[in-house]
Amino acid sequence: MTLIECIPNFSEGRRPEVIDQITDAVRSVDGVSLLDVQSDATHNRCVVTFVGHEGPIAEAAFRAIKKASEVIDLNQHEGAHPRFGATDVCPFVPLRSEEMPVCIETAHALARRVADELGIPAFLYEDAARTSEHRNLAVVRGKGFEEMRDVIGGEPAKTPDEGEARVHATAGAVAIGARFPLIAFNVNLDSDDLELAKRIAIAIREKDGGMKCVKAMGLQLEDGSAQVSMNLTDYRVSSPSDVVAVISERAAAAGVAIRESEVVGLLPQDVLVRLAQAALYAKDFGREQVLEAQVLDTLL
Amino acid sequence: MTLIECIPNFSEGRRPEVIDQITDAVRSVDGVSLLDVQSDATHNRCVVTFVGHEGPIAEAAFRAIKKASEVIDLNQHEGAHPRFGATDVCPFVPLRSEEMPVCIETAHALARRVADELGIPAFLYEDAARTSEHRNLAVVRGKGFEEMRDVIGGEPAKTPDEGEARVHATAGAVAIGARFPLIAFNVNLDSDDLELAKRIAIAIREKDGGMKCVKAMGLQLEDGSAQVSMNLTDYRVSSPSDVVAVISERAAAAGVAIRESEVVGLLPQDVLVRLAQAALYAKDFGREQVLEAQVLDTLL
Repeated sequence: MTLIECIPNFSEGRRPEVIDQITDAVRSVDGVSLLDVQSDATHNRCVVTFVGHEGPIAEAAFRAIKKASEVIDLNQHEGAHPRFGATDVCPFVPLRSEEMPVCIETAHALARRVADELGIPAFLYEDAARTSEHRNLAVVRGKGFEEMRDVIGGEPAKTPDEGEARVHATAGAVAIGARFPLIAFNVNLDSDDLELAKRIAIAIREKDGGMKCVKAMGLQLEDGSAQVSMNLTDYRVSSPSDVVAVISERAAAAGVAIRESEVVGLLPQDVLVRLAQAALYAKDFGREQVLEAQVLDTLL
Repeated sequence: MTLIECIPNFSEGRRPEVIDQITDAVRSVDGVSLLDVQSDATHNRCVVTFVGHEGPIAEAAFRAIKKASEVIDLNQHEGAHPRFGATDVCPFVPLRSEEMPVCIETAHALARRVADELGIPAFLYEDAARTSEHRNLAVVRGKGFEEMRDVIGGEPAKTPDEGEARVHATAGAVAIGARFPLIAFNVNLDSDDLELAKRIAIAIREKDGGMKCVKAMGLQLEDGSAQVSMNLTDYRVSSPSDVVAVISERAAAAGVAIRESEVVGLLPQDVLVRLAQAALYAKDFGREQVLEAQVLDTLL
């Protein structure tokens, strides 16, 4: 069983009836579970999360992209978030690390279908990228629809992987990708020392030579607590317990303890299984030993 | 959503075609997932595990008990395991601790139905017990069918909670209960010192004044390793990480480390959620944040 998460972002965050048409397209596919819809009026964008096996999930993604191309006109769209498509991005995320190849294949097949059947040029990004210039979504998207409407192609970063080098008149382009699940994880110190939180954040984040696959910054919460706010881009490389261990040690060196931490949003069960393997010395413990995982397998 | 596990034990472990009839009865109910069937010829007994919401799970348990009463004759049964019924025991187990009251209600209603419709006297045991004399299954079951065939009732421990004080001629009696999930958890020491494993087992087990809800013994594995083998009867009181912490400390005092541990069988996801709360300082982390749990909720 290959259970895949799909988290497309659509360029509509203000008209609920339009968002409903897109989510109805997702719901129309048997075997797909719609988990979450979040819209933001300022960004004029919505994020839809659904889960299913590779076949149904690809069909649901296609139907949603098709519906979005019918009901969103980027020429009329304004919002704070950068975007170049009615469906701006469509990443497939593996719930277990060994499922990444299936996510990449799914992204490739969907990009071809979207280009062929809908006439929307598709860029393959992150782990699904075919060229290194397309890995980074921000580089591919550049200044968005208005820029790409005038100039597409020419340089590798701006040449779509599937479809012609010409944006769809109203739906623009789409970035379809595969990526590892991102974990938003915050650790609050038992202190109001913002400088300490900032120092720890700098020490642990990858871009300043710290832990691989960790993005971090120091913040002050409304109640005054200092927080190390993180994104963990690959929990196999740096897990929540890995960063807790390092933050705990560095805070303790300044005489400060961890007050509490928080997981923002959802966590794949695999993170918990790995935590059990490490915390309990149970290296052979596996997801098939989680009762709810067995129930899920019998239902899907 | 109240997801409940049911783990009835039937007095048949030698005739696969009989076991199939019983598991088919379970499968005949929509909304029930059959997870596991294990039979043992020496014990002449099988253990069936299935999961579902309270309504379907009670119906599936009833159909299985009814089928067992039709295809098993205890007068012809012999096996090493104590038993007093064609369906010997039928416990309901909550997957989350707050669901115990639903399990108890389900057990009570099923006992009444089994007595009324099948004429099998039912004893309510463990958390579903109505009298303290029935809490302990071993006391209720006594010397089993042959004893109870001659004498039932008279003393509280031998008087059924539902039905007349007379065993069913072929199906005997049944113990229906509710209990917390039991976790079979072993910790292997990086040592062949059996005496150390035994000392640790004695120090941590409840019956010798150790940790509550912990049963433990010291064993020597085939490869020579010393093992502390445990049953944790309530992981809310003593969790796997609790016993790991204590064993680690006691072993270290003897200069020995933990080599590895193993979870035998299935673990409710709740155990992992609690582990994350503790290990990551994430006290507000909840099952609704586990992606697979959300998928399961949309499917059930």
